[in-house]
Amino acid sequence: MTRLFAALALITAGLAAQAEEATTFTLDNGMEVVVIEDHRAPVVVHMVWYKIGSADEPVGASGVAHFLEHLLFKQTDVLEAGEFSAIVSANGGSDNAFTSYDYTAYFQRIAADRLELMMQMESNRMNNLAITADDIETERNVILEERNQRTENNPGALAREQFQAALYQNHRYGVPIIGWKHEMEQLELEDTKAFYDLYYSPNNAVLVVAGDVQPDAVKALAETYYGVIPAEAQLPERIRPQEPPQRAERRVTYVDPRVSQPYLIRSYLAPERDPGAQSEAAALVYLADLLGGSSFTSALGQALQFDRQIALYTNASYDGSSLDTDMFSVAVAPADGVTLSQAEAAMDEVINAFMEADIDPARMDSIRTQLRASEVYAKDDVQQLARRYGAALTQSLTVQDVQAWPDVLQSVTEADIKAVAAKVFNRDQSVTGWVVSSQEEAR
Amino acid sequence: MTRLFAALALITAGLAAQAEEATTFTLDNGMEVVVIEDHRAPVVVHMVWYKIGSADEPVGASGVAHFLEHLLFKQTDVLEAGEFSAIVSANGGSDNAFTSYDYTAYFQRIAADRLELMMQMESNRMNNLAITADDIETERNVILEERNQRTENNPGALAREQFQAALYQNHRYGVPIIGWKHEMEQLELEDTKAFYDLYYSPNNAVLVVAGDVQPDAVKALAETYYGVIPAEAQLPERIRPQEPPQRAERRVTYVDPRVSQPYLIRSYLAPERDPGAQSEAAALVYLADLLGGSSFTSALGQALQFDRQIALYTNASYDGSSLDTDMFSVAVAPADGVTLSQAEAAMDEVINAFMEADIDPARMDSIRTQLRASEVYAKDDVQQLARRYGAALTQSLTVQDVQAWPDVLQSVTEADIKAVAAKVFNRDQSVTGWVVSSQEEAR
Repeated sequence: MTRLFAALALITAGLAAQAEEATTFTLDNGMEVVVIEDHRAPVVVHMVWYKIGSADEPVGASGVAHFLEHLLFKQTDVLEAGEFSAIVSANGGSDNAFTSYDYTAYFQRIAADRLELMMQMESNRMNNLAITADDIETERNVILEERNQRTENNPGALAREQFQAALYQNHRYGVPIIGWKHEMEQLELEDTKAFYDLYYSPNNAVLVVAGDVQPDAVKALAETYYGVIPAEAQLPERIRPQEPPQRAERRVTYVDPRVSQPYLIRSYLAPERDPGAQSEAAALVYLADLLGGSSFTSALGQALQFDRQIALYTNASYDGSSLDTDMFSVAVAPADGVTLSQAEAAMDEVINAFMEADIDPARMDSIRTQLRASEVYAKDDVQQLARRYGAALTQSLTVQDVQAWPDVLQSVTEADIKAVAAKVFNRDQSVTGWVVSSQEEAR
Repeated sequence: MTRLFAALALITAGLAAQAEEATTFTLDNGMEVVVIEDHRAPVVVHMVWYKIGSADEPVGASGVAHFLEHLLFKQTDVLEAGEFSAIVSANGGSDNAFTSYDYTAYFQRIAADRLELMMQMESNRMNNLAITADDIETERNVILEERNQRTENNPGALAREQFQAALYQNHRYGVPIIGWKHEMEQLELEDTKAFYDLYYSPNNAVLVVAGDVQPDAVKALAETYYGVIPAEAQLPERIRPQEPPQRAERRVTYVDPRVSQPYLIRSYLAPERDPGAQSEAAALVYLADLLGGSSFTSALGQALQFDRQIALYTNASYDGSSLDTDMFSVAVAPADGVTLSQAEAAMDEVINAFMEADIDPARMDSIRTQLRASEVYAKDDVQQLARRYGAALTQSLTVQDVQAWPDVLQSVTEADIKAVAAKVFNRDQSVTGWVVSSQEEAR
């Protein structure tokens, strides 16, 4: 293993991890624009991100953000239902959309000379959607079927919903993005229209254009198509209910006969990347890698999978991209004959030992190198770059934060990691979830 | 014990449990009125109930319902701050107010000939409250201090908050009535005004007048004082987010060095009294009594406190008065040397044994008799009667439901109890909370 990492370090050491060129401006109606130039291929990625996600939904209407994402492919005053994607496809491009807790985004990847057409259509559906009651009936069945496939038929997803509902006591991150089924069934035309009218507005949107384009040309087009849409005067301040001090450890056991392999996952509340304050998040990226990154080199993998052979799988994960309090998770699937109690005790031994011991400087170097390498490779993927800016700008970060992030990652020290770990590993702010096929397995 | 209950049965057997006289009507502006006559003393209880409680608050503004309750004692266009209560007191009466999940209510108990004065003042503050930014500053400190005393300084209350937040995954019953402290600190004039303007309206209120009054006279007064207030046209339909199917048992451990006696409490979601459908709730009243009513006769008390002497305290509780899904709880405080695990296992043995065994008909008779007796005695307390109607009518029940309730209680059978118990004792819809002074006690 050592040799392989050394080789990787050699390759990437020569590559500068300098920030990509990003030009930013704001239209008069408040719409933010980011342009990322990449002239290696005559392709453009065109994305519109709305600062509205499932965690902004009215109580009782969970799923409406994602429902609306589906409805944006229906008819407008000039486009027929399905015509948007058909035109993109007929022009050799591809398009899609996604909804998360903090944002809803629409994008196309297409030949650079078709950018104006994309803007024309995307700006049209920002303001002129013409949803009907029939669309609601049809598309509600589609999202319910989506929930069926992704969640109801997936014990792991159902368990995750239960665990996350227990982790967040007040914040809407405890409600699934796709929605609670009983609330999705009640979503009506008025719910989607109210949401659309208020939040699909230029002053609540970020335009990201990345690829073979010139900032000036993008600006002219953006003014022509998006600049003419009036700002929404009623747009409310984005205020989310925050977590109270969490004071008690929670444990949740999810029993489902469809579970083929029992496992446990513990999630702790954890700080997210914040504007001008990303160093705790950066340290948590290292912590996840050190504890549960690779099964060969991570603390959990080495101890539980290799040395003691009591786990089939170990993991630690942290994202850090969220508007509000994020989570840090560790997971173990025990080997045959090992109970979940034993696996959890062993997991906690590893975490405790990690907190007591020094971190191997070679591991720190290796993670730093990997992060620098993935930063360099990220620049080759213009779509990923565009996504990075769109997500950041809808989650309160700035272009400066995005560009500073690689350096913040590089400057993490062992002390930073230990400090944030000591803060995050507070059982009072955690949920330990067990996923088993029967009560008998829950021991 | 047997003789004591027999004596009680003799006393109450002769008393008819007939419903009190309640006259109801609705003013033109939508305000409901209930008049209960009781001419034994020249006293009247005057109550205004608003169909607005903490579970109706906007997300992020927890505590605003209770905050507003405090502010209603500040100045209006004609009353000075504190003058309302001063006038009640100067007229020999007493007044107060209370906030719950489903309602906020204001009441006075005073000589019957002062009813008009009460209506004059209470109708005045329904529409003419003149809160200032200064009031907000002052009174916010009062409610924060109230939270300090009732919650922050009370480990049992803090634990209950954590347990209830875990029990409700979607419903606002998971948020404390008094509010989360960090949200109370942010409550501003606009929050309280918006809440007041929308919800303090005759079409969102129930007037209950009980005591030495004539319905016709009450009606004339109500029309004079409340009938002239215009209905609030913007009053929204009262839609609450409901629970999704709960699929996983939750366990919460609350550790606080101030805990002097460890205990455990398990709460299950349970049906509430619903319009025309109160029989499950009635059966749960019996179940609570049978399992944990008296420490001498209940299943938990007999088995754990007397026979095995492993518990200092046992309890089962159920209220049933709520607009949405309620809870049923069982609790045990173990004796010295008994762990919480042992106590919980013993508690579950008792519950399982209860489900297997027949219910002693003598116990059924005894509960029936007690319920009939307390029904008879309730009629002596006109304030309690008034409260009963006010709570019911703000929780979706009707006057008919209130009057049918004693008979529904009398008609509960053993089969009803077993059926509802089988439904409620579903661990996937439960939270088991442990309250301990240290991690070492949590075993």
